[in-house]
Amino acid sequence: MTTKATRYTGNKTFEIVDAPVTAPEPGEVRIKVAYCGVCGTDVHIYHGMMDQRVSIPLTIGHEMSGTVDAVGEGVTGFSVGEKVVVRPLDDRGAKPSDKGHNHIASALKFIGIDSPGAMQPYWNVPAFTLHKLPDTSDLRLAALIEPLAVACHDVRLSGLKENEYAVVLGGGPIGMLVAMRARSAGAKVLISETNETRVAMAKELGFAVVNPAKENLVDYVSAQTDGGLADVVFEVAGVQPTIDVMTDVAGIRGRIVLVAIHGQPRPVNLFKFFWKELQLIGARVYEPEDYEDAIRLVAEKSLPLESLITAVAPLTEVQSVFEQIDRDPNGMKVLLDCQA
Amino acid sequence: MTTKATRYTGNKTFEIVDAPVTAPEPGEVRIKVAYCGVCGTDVHIYHGMMDQRVSIPLTIGHEMSGTVDAVGEGVTGFSVGEKVVVRPLDDRGAKPSDKGHNHIASALKFIGIDSPGAMQPYWNVPAFTLHKLPDTSDLRLAALIEPLAVACHDVRLSGLKENEYAVVLGGGPIGMLVAMRARSAGAKVLISETNETRVAMAKELGFAVVNPAKENLVDYVSAQTDGGLADVVFEVAGVQPTIDVMTDVAGIRGRIVLVAIHGQPRPVNLFKFFWKELQLIGARVYEPEDYEDAIRLVAEKSLPLESLITAVAPLTEVQSVFEQIDRDPNGMKVLLDCQA
Ligand SMILES: NC(=O)c1ccc[n+]([C@@H]2O[C@H](COP(=O)([O-])OP(=O)(O)OC[C@H]3O[C@@H](n4cnc5c(N)ncnc54)[C@H](O)[C@@H]3O)[C@@H](O)[C@H]2O)c1
Ligand SMILES: NC(=O)c1ccc[n+]([C@@H]2O[C@H](COP(=O)([O-])OP(=O)(O)OC[C@H]3O[C@@H](n4cnc5c(N)ncnc54)[C@H](O)[C@@H]3O)[C@@H](O)[C@H]2O)c1
Ligand SMILES: [Zn+2]
Ligand SMILES: [Zn+2]
Repeated sequence: MTTKATRYTGNKTFEIVDAPVTAPEPGEVRIKVAYCGVCGTDVHIYHGMMDQRVSIPLTIGHEMSGTVDAVGEGVTGFSVGEKVVVRPLDDRGAKPSDKGHNHIASALKFIGIDSPGAMQPYWNVPAFTLHKLPDTSDLRLAALIEPLAVACHDVRLSGLKENEYAVVLGGGPIGMLVAMRARSAGAKVLISETNETRVAMAKELGFAVVNPAKENLVDYVSAQTDGGLADVVFEVAGVQPTIDVMTDVAGIRGRIVLVAIHGQPRPVNLFKFFWKELQLIGARVYEPEDYEDAIRLVAEKSLPLESLITAVAPLTEVQSVFEQIDRDPNGMKVLLDCQA
Repeated sequence: MTTKATRYTGNKTFEIVDAPVTAPEPGEVRIKVAYCGVCGTDVHIYHGMMDQRVSIPLTIGHEMSGTVDAVGEGVTGFSVGEKVVVRPLDDRGAKPSDKGHNHIASALKFIGIDSPGAMQPYWNVPAFTLHKLPDTSDLRLAALIEPLAVACHDVRLSGLKENEYAVVLGGGPIGMLVAMRARSAGAKVLISETNETRVAMAKELGFAVVNPAKENLVDYVSAQTDGGLADVVFEVAGVQPTIDVMTDVAGIRGRIVLVAIHGQPRPVNLFKFFWKELQLIGARVYEPEDYEDAIRLVAEKSLPLESLITAVAPLTEVQSVFEQIDRDPNGMKVLLDCQA
């Protein structure tokens, strides 16, 4: 049996190829992929920014949901038809010097970047990457579990407590998910975002929103908090202006979670770190408990995740999907239907 | 009764003036000052760098030891002759927006900078600033309790645990005290220092030392830790090269305590904060428990504090003491004998 799989071939191009459906190796499970979301990293790959790291041609994709389709030798605890998601971290190279933090092990491989990913109808993965979903889970929404787990990790590392005031700098897909997770933790949440379409969307989702190009963010937060400013700040924009404002908008002993990826050293106001005893907390991907947290939140249907899905397109339209994402800076999350 | 007090009068000048010994106000205690150490901040003031903040003429000084000489109305729990140190933080202006972190309250006044300090034979201070010393305490060493409390605070905020590997960037007075406190917590401690006199001193104190101008610090630490690098880094130098190296020498989930004061924004490698999930922890002065910790350590005589004392000079020689400190970049801690 063969299916139509996608492969990134470099130079902003995907091809659709006939791919055999192969039996899972020992320790592996074959997944029938239901949906695969397009992540900012996938767009980065499409732009050729990661051609050094990616073995072209490569099937990419890591934000997925699916069902177990076949179970390899030695794999126990999974049966065909069960709904699952993959935590796409291959930490088999972890060393003692990683100090048990295997999700950021120095030799970590990210499945879907460093090895084949989910933008295909059938996908063989190591069984240890799987998390089971409740039977009743909506597989469309379940494709958001990976980025939601990022948000769960960020909020967990922040130590955010009920009634604390959190400022999310950047209302892209990750920022919106951080804001939702923070709100469900009982915090007061403000989103700072410069794109007016995203500002409007954040307001529709019931968040307080400031556009810092139009209004002074620090004055706004100061007024809302009787001068106490933010207890927690999430830097999810990745630009110098948010690095500048993060140290101003954080109050005394404020915790700043650095989620965004900054490709270059940035001037940081270290005096404010000293003066207000601020903390900067780097956060990368997720640990198993963050996946379980995200799975629970999707099952409970307590977050307005549906509104983040801009479009669902058939897998075979992958090329036009990426071209469309490039044209539209307002879109949030596009899903590929991997069985269509 | 009058005594000879010192006053900073601007332009690198101290004068010696006849000052009356006054009765303590209600809520105050008069201290007979034994010793007062010269801090980097005092040298800053002497250089005229803080003339905006300091009300000239002003008696400065905040690293002191002494005995209770008279007790003002309403003060209970102190009696004449008791050995004490002053925690020079006037937090009477603390507000709810300071969230209970009164040692860094936004309206905090630092006694000896924002109000008269200890470089005089008799000093009236609010009773709430006092910590009692055991009878047997050595008042010379007790003058180091204030900077030692800084070190206790830094190590406490780092969460340093037994057998962890700590790197102290900068072996000045504060760095040496941080290293001593870290070692007494059971950590393995390395000092990185560029001044060869201070390198030699750190070695004499039994520390592993690297001069990063001569040897690659990261390679050294990597070899010592089987690639695990530092669990905790203390930035106590205040220069760009240590900001550059702090993110390299910290291992996965490493905690970097920012002790040094950086007067300008510094380029920081934020990618490494994300990649290794590093934490940056701003640390400023101390809380009451840090003073108690420092008092205990001085009483136990477990730290080689004596070796940090470069010289003890009579109070009346304050002018030549500051001139000498300016000439000698190697000196560590100079004490003024405030009764001589
Ligand atoms: N830590 C992790 O493991 C992890 C995981 C996924 C993504 N990321 C990173 O998180 C960041 C956000 O991801 P995303 O997919 O949401 O990206 P995105 O680019 O869609 O979102 C960033 C948002 O910030 C907004 N913005 C730009 N300038 C701003 C400013 N001055 N003030 C406020 N908002 C501003 C943009 O309009 C945009 O909406 C990226 O840097 C991404 O690489 C990190
Ligand atoms: N957080 C607080 O509350 C607090 C309290 C006191 C002092 N401080 C600050 O702590 C810092 C240290 O104070 P100090 O009195 O020990 O100062 P110091 O200037 O005596 O010590 C700094 C040391 O760093 C060394 N150094 C310079 N470049 C270096 C490099 N590239 N690598 C390694 N070492 C290098 C210097 O030779 C010097 O010995 C200062 O910035 C001071 O303002 C902070
Ligand atoms: Zn992703
Ligand atoms: Zn000082």
